[in-house]
Amino acid sequence: MAKTGRLARAGALAEQEGLSALILSHGSDLSYLTGYAGRPDERFCAVVIVPEEEPMLIAPGINGADARRTGIGNVLLWGDGDDPYELLRDALGKGFPRSCRIGVNDTMPARFLFGLKRAFPRAELVDGSGVIAPMRMIKDREELDTMARVSLLTEECMQAVVSRGRDWIGKTESSYQAAMAAELRERGLGGTGGLVQAGANAAEPHHRPGQSVIGNGACLLHDVGGILNGYHADMTRTLFFGEPTARFREVYSVVLEANLAAEASVSAGVPFEAIDRAARSVIEKAGYGPYFTHRTGHGIGLDGHEGFGPGKGVTEAVKPGMVFSVEPGVYLPGEFGIRIEDLMMIEEDGSVRCLNSFPKDLICL
Amino acid sequence: MAKTGRLARAGALAEQEGLSALILSHGSDLSYLTGYAGRPDERFCAVVIVPEEEPMLIAPGINGADARRTGIGNVLLWGDGDDPYELLRDALGKGFPRSCRIGVNDTMPARFLFGLKRAFPRAELVDGSGVIAPMRMIKDREELDTMARVSLLTEECMQAVVSRGRDWIGKTESSYQAAMAAELRERGLGGTGGLVQAGANAAEPHHRPGQSVIGNGACLLHDVGGILNGYHADMTRTLFFGEPTARFREVYSVVLEANLAAEASVSAGVPFEAIDRAARSVIEKAGYGPYFTHRTGHGIGLDGHEGFGPGKGVTEAVKPGMVFSVEPGVYLPGEFGIRIEDLMMIEEDGSVRCLNSFPKDLICL
Repeated sequence: MAKTGRLARAGALAEQEGLSALILSHGSDLSYLTGYAGRPDERFCAVVIVPEEEPMLIAPGINGADARRTGIGNVLLWGDGDDPYELLRDALGKGFPRSCRIGVNDTMPARFLFGLKRAFPRAELVDGSGVIAPMRMIKDREELDTMARVSLLTEECMQAVVSRGRDWIGKTESSYQAAMAAELRERGLGGTGGLVQAGANAAEPHHRPGQSVIGNGACLLHDVGGILNGYHADMTRTLFFGEPTARFREVYSVVLEANLAAEASVSAGVPFEAIDRAARSVIEKAGYGPYFTHRTGHGIGLDGHEGFGPGKGVTEAVKPGMVFSVEPGVYLPGEFGIRIEDLMMIEEDGSVRCLNSFPKDLICL
Repeated sequence: MAKTGRLARAGALAEQEGLSALILSHGSDLSYLTGYAGRPDERFCAVVIVPEEEPMLIAPGINGADARRTGIGNVLLWGDGDDPYELLRDALGKGFPRSCRIGVNDTMPARFLFGLKRAFPRAELVDGSGVIAPMRMIKDREELDTMARVSLLTEECMQAVVSRGRDWIGKTESSYQAAMAAELRERGLGGTGGLVQAGANAAEPHHRPGQSVIGNGACLLHDVGGILNGYHADMTRTLFFGEPTARFREVYSVVLEANLAAEASVSAGVPFEAIDRAARSVIEKAGYGPYFTHRTGHGIGLDGHEGFGPGKGVTEAVKPGMVFSVEPGVYLPGEFGIRIEDLMMIEEDGSVRCLNSFPKDLICL
């Protein structure tokens, strides 16, 4: 169902930003405001927010039933062969300014932007995420509860998979991923079984699970998050099968120390770059700085990555209602990779809550 | 691996179109040219084709291993905190024109367009699908074989699910979908279990499968396609559990006749709108015109919907190497919906091949 309060707030913020309209196509911005994500296809579907007017939902006629279920009164349906952008322009009427700024979602596909540009040739299409991202970053009670729940359920799934212990030796990354996916489905969660990276594959932060075999005497990095009512979990643990080398143990302890230092630095009011610095300085002091190749974390919610999070140069402050990851890692090409990731939630009273309680001390199976 | 011939052809076509560069971000355009789809996240990743120069792949450093595996020699990696658009501008050098037209993929997210616009403020960013879509629509032998294979395997899965017969009565749409998904996975195919719509739900063309129960004395519409090496199948059959009413039988025979008439009209050189007309006129003559609420079909390949296909006003001609759907339907709100969908392939010698042999006569279980 449409979120009336959020729609009204988005309209007010759009007006403050000098936007004549905010047009948000399929995806999580649309879902955040209307409860309906649209279909990720080539047919134009968007909520159109003109300050101080009723919001409008424009959708393909074949998805009309879904569009009406949002409860938005002003639904404009179009059929295959129609030009939805012209229909929208006509619906906005002669009172809508020709020269104006229209904000769009930052995930809007170019084809929709080109369509809007044809219908509104004198309008400037600008990034509307300045309106909608800050709203989404501050979660309400229901959103916070959902995110805590999906993190808890994801940990249950990880526990179920890890508990098979040394049975995994000789199995493929893909089969580990499939087992995790089955656990998620069993608990009613969406999402894939995540990134599963064995041995030296773990040194590539985004390696896709394949036919590589989980070996004895090697690590297994598992980065995964279920999805509940659209909200994402995200956690990473790095296990070891057999007896790790001294070097692996040393790097593991550095990454764990970085994770703990960054999490300890989290509090309302702190700039995100300080959290990044807390993790990075531990890793740099240990001499592994060049091997920590990414930011320390990211915002999360209806998208797996959203808004902003701990990173160099991110001067924005942590605020109540935010949820973000803390995930330092060290990746040694050809050897192994280690990442330890938790989600941090800032409660409405400003207190800090880590959504993950899965053990972080090195687990050797 | 990078498709050298395709990259060269895209460069030549871009030059013909007066583009100074073609920039294609993550997704199937990128995959078509480089064998690498990129990751669908907020980090900029694209192949950059400047006519008569070596193609360049720009990618986040953390995905550097994937980027290098494409075999593209000119790889530009950037790190979190860098501005990838400025790095790209610098890499293109002073010889790159300031005022120019740059083509982009029609699925490029707005955030990347805004980034490019900042770095190339005097360039006009235009729809590059005029270069890439016509290339993708004409499949080569390997692509055609893959599409035939994924259709065949999808039919095997549908057969396996349908063969459980009346056991489905009382089960949910979701469980039917999950069973189909399991069959796809078992055969190594990607994709979900498709759209599963029981009874009156089938009257909503894009209804999402839910907890509705498959009933005796009601239809079940199933629209599904597996994915093999990135290539999509797509087929729809509408079954009936129990004894259908005379009205259901009548509408079914109209939709089947429309499907057969449209497929019979397919041949190289025919405009796509004629195929649409062949289906639509059958349904209109029977008095159900207002209930056939969508185009007759769509192009398909690396995307489930791509390029163009049978529809009103689509004057382009059918050509060898094309694959598209023929899927007329009639949707009677509150009663039932019927759609019958096959994929049609135009072989390199111009002969027409239907990729589906699953029975189309009404199956009553």
